[in-house]
Amino acid sequence: MTEFLEGGDMPVEKWRVVFHVSDGQLWPRALKNITNFLREVGDAAAQVEVVANAAAVTGYFMDGEELGQMVQLAERGVVFKACRNALKEHALENSALPPFVQVVPAGVAELVQKQAAGYAYIKP
Amino acid sequence: MTEFLEGGDMPVEKWRVVFHVSDGQLWPRALKNITNFLREVGDAAAQVEVVANAAAVTGYFMDGEELGQMVQLAERGVVFKACRNALKEHALENSALPPFVQVVPAGVAELVQKQAAGYAYIKP
Amino acid sequence: MTEFLEGGDMPVEKWRVVFHVSDGQLWPRALKNITNFLREVGDAAAQVEVVANAAAVTGYFMDGEELGQMVQLAERGVVFKACRNALKEHALENSALPPFVQVVPAGVAELVQKQAAGYAYIKP
Repeated sequence: MTEFLEGGDMPVEKWRVVFHVSDGQLWPRALKNITNFLREVGDAAAQVEVVANAAAVTGYFMDGEELGQMVQLAERGVVFKACRNALKEHALENSALPPFVQVVPAGVAELVQKQAAGYAYIKP
Repeated sequence: MTEFLEGGDMPVEKWRVVFHVSDGQLWPRALKNITNFLREVGDAAAQVEVVANAAAVTGYFMDGEELGQMVQLAERGVVFKACRNALKEHALENSALPPFVQVVPAGVAELVQKQAAGYAYIKP
Repeated sequence: MTEFLEGGDMPVEKWRVVFHVSDGQLWPRALKNITNFLREVGDAAAQVEVVANAAAVTGYFMDGEELGQMVQLAERGVVFKACRNALKEHALENSALPPFVQVVPAGVAELVQKQAAGYAYIKP
């Protein structure tokens, strides 16, 4: 579940976690969860990915406080992904996504693969 | 987290995942998640189980589009299970369940055991 | 995912699971899940932890049936934890928590660490 980074005399544990966001109204809670997690373990020791599917993909298209928080978290290394099926279903264009968001073919497959690779799973 | 199937010249990775459905109104999302997952990884490479507990067990007793989708997914190898405690609580008879649904003593125990066996966990 | 206890002639499998409660109204379901789980696998074979974050931390401050159930479960070995960030956000004093509840700096970090240690994850 962990990997080790060369960080000097002591190895630094890297905590890997994938956050699954499927309800648009839970973005504020999810972003707060991630911010608190990074404060606790430290950015260098965290490998955080966010997978949005279902209606939560609309969150990537809204201006406002949440998008600003996402940009800041992306700059700190958090990876944001969007489910292509959910984008299609909500008639959202991949090309209109913010540049920090990566599209995956199926959000659920991404969640399974990340867990298989040792990531913890959190549903905010 | 994965096992390998003899599939010809190359081993085929098998992705194992258990879906936890506890809210009846989330069945459509859960079934769409599973369909998208199977389309992405391929039926032969997937080992999918669905555990319904709490009010979600009522979904097995409703006619309509969702039940038809469940039948089709069951034919493609998806395993559907129902929590016996939840069935009792909702005064539902095991014998009235569709034939493709298996009853487990406690849905949560099933979810823990599947994760212990290497299944990823998804809450739609 | 499991450890073995010295229990006599045969090792007893220990099932480890962390329950994540973030919605206050889902406490009754969470406590029922845990009770059913313990009945199924047996108290001696279970290592159960509950992590409450977001609005669910308020549940530790309410009198009533749920608190009574928590006390009983704690006496049976279930570990209850509360997220310090969530307590602050809801202006709740750590010192007013019931004695069986432990405060952790970040609920999400606790959930990640428990999964990294082999606990299954359940979102009731």
